[in-house]
Amino acid sequence: MKRKPVKPRSKTIAAPLLRARVWVETSGKPAITDAGADLLEQIGVSGSLSEAARRLHFSYRRAWMLLDAMNRRWPGPLVKSTTGGKRGGGAVVTELGKQVLGAYRDLQVQLEHLLDSAGEPFKHLK
Amino acid sequence: MKRKPVKPRSKTIAAPLLRARVWVETSGKPAITDAGADLLEQIGVSGSLSEAARRLHFSYRRAWMLLDAMNRRWPGPLVKSTTGGKRGGGAVVTELGKQVLGAYRDLQVQLEHLLDSAGEPFKHLK
Repeated sequence: MKRKPVKPRSKTIAAPLLRARVWVETSGKPAITDAGADLLEQIGVSGSLSEAARRLHFSYRRAWMLLDAMNRRWPGPLVKSTTGGKRGGGAVVTELGKQVLGAYRDLQVQLEHLLDSAGEPFKHLK
Repeated sequence: MKRKPVKPRSKTIAAPLLRARVWVETSGKPAITDAGADLLEQIGVSGSLSEAARRLHFSYRRAWMLLDAMNRRWPGPLVKSTTGGKRGGGAVVTELGKQVLGAYRDLQVQLEHLLDSAGEPFKHLK
């Protein structure tokens, strides 16, 4: 593998931007992540796992596995399947699922606030 | 690929643990990360890139590339090479490097505090 040539330092450096990723684990495994929260939200809106997957550009397999993992990592399922009815079954976010999603969205908002304020010291370095 | 069997939900679910990763970008690229901060710190302690790499179990190549990238993403280098002397050259963390490392460690502490307090709502879900 060729060593890349050292590029000269660019004359203007864009302002530092703080980035972060947050997730919740139970027993050392992800119990809700950004992708999981988006999936819950879209299931809530569409009432269907396959429709939620489509909207998020996830494969059905990925969406199913993500949901299956989330469902087993809390004291109860976050989404339940419904059978029958006009549309031949669908998915419903449980009360616990709504609570988990709400707590996660709150956490994301708090994190955004932290990044806004904590970025200040990085802007004045030279 | 075989579909894995659905495991039964375990009877006891460990308390939810909040996890996060934070980093700083300039021009869309990482300018300091956890690994970068650890590298700066160990260079500061040991005065040598190869010794810092060894202590962190990084390959020399990985450490070199990480440092090279960091050095080009701030208004000046975070580490400078020194030549000559008893030990035949080494590496010194610049004043800017110390400031970046300090600001990053402060950010990590603030994030830990946020995770401690923001984890509370997840513990009472059922």
